Amino acid sequence: MSLDGTYDEGNVFALILESKIPCTRLYEDEHTLSFLDIMPQTKGHALVISKWSRARNLLDMEDEALAQVMATAKKVATAIRDALKPDGIQIAQFNGAPAGQTIFHMHVHILPRWSGEPIGFVPHGQGAQADGEQLQALAQEIRAYL
Amino acid sequence: MSLDGTYDEGNVFALILESKIPCTRLYEDEHTLSFLDIMPQTKGHALVISKWSRARNLLDMEDEALAQVMATAKKVATAIRDALKPDGIQIAQFNGAPAGQTIFHMHVHILPRWSGEPIGFVPHGQGAQADGEQLQALAQEIRAYL
Repeated sequence: MSLDGTYDEGNVFALILESKIPCTRLYEDEHTLSFLDIMPQTKGHALVISKWSRARNLLDMEDEALAQVMATAKKVATAIRDALKPDGIQIAQFNGAPAGQTIFHMHVHILPRWSGEPIGFVPHGQGAQADGEQLQALAQEIRAYL
Repeated sequence: MSLDGTYDEGNVFALILESKIPCTRLYEDEHTLSFLDIMPQTKGHALVISKWSRARNLLDMEDEALAQVMATAKKVATAIRDALKPDGIQIAQFNGAPAGQTIFHMHVHILPRWSGEPIGFVPHGQGAQADGEQLQALAQEIRAYL
């Protein structure tokens, strides 16, 4: 079952944490990192990860790491609200491939939503990659509130 | 904007906490309560709320209450995994009506998922109410792992 398994040190988020892969950073503190999703489901789609936990998913995660990730998710969601003025914000966290998880380093999605647009979540891999310069400009807008 | 506003003491979850409305309880501790959603999106669809926070949504919520709610979500999700053996589990938390929120007492959804079934979230109010006896039987199955 894909909820089991061991942590893969070569996963994309582990490589981001080792600076082997770049990311469009929004916020960083001692324990957590937040950046824009490169395949955004919606404008301002952001992710939050723990820097130190080797949890694949929620079930594996230390309560302390979970509290840190969620506190950062709240902080970044607040900045996204202030910067982009969405009508609503969804928080989503997927455990196991059948639940939509594609990268097995536990992560929280922040999805700004606008009235009149669909609020479903498209499985990753089916979306399009964002333009790097657009992501940078968006990150700058959001970082102004962090 | 529906992310703003003040806490309505008469919301359904406040009434559950005051025992004015029943719920199918899964787990309870000093700070949090978990129960089955009466309009389940999937078998074992559970909710977690804070007993003391008067937060409408994530943006309002005290970091401490958030950490407590998420620790309970992890605990209940683990019991659901063990009891129902889903292939994956989604965690979802909605802020504002345009993001799918219908009850304005901050709550976290736990959604067990099975391979081959759709993983989208149907807005509340469009689903059907569950049979009370079935919910009770399901709760008993899950509580055996808590």
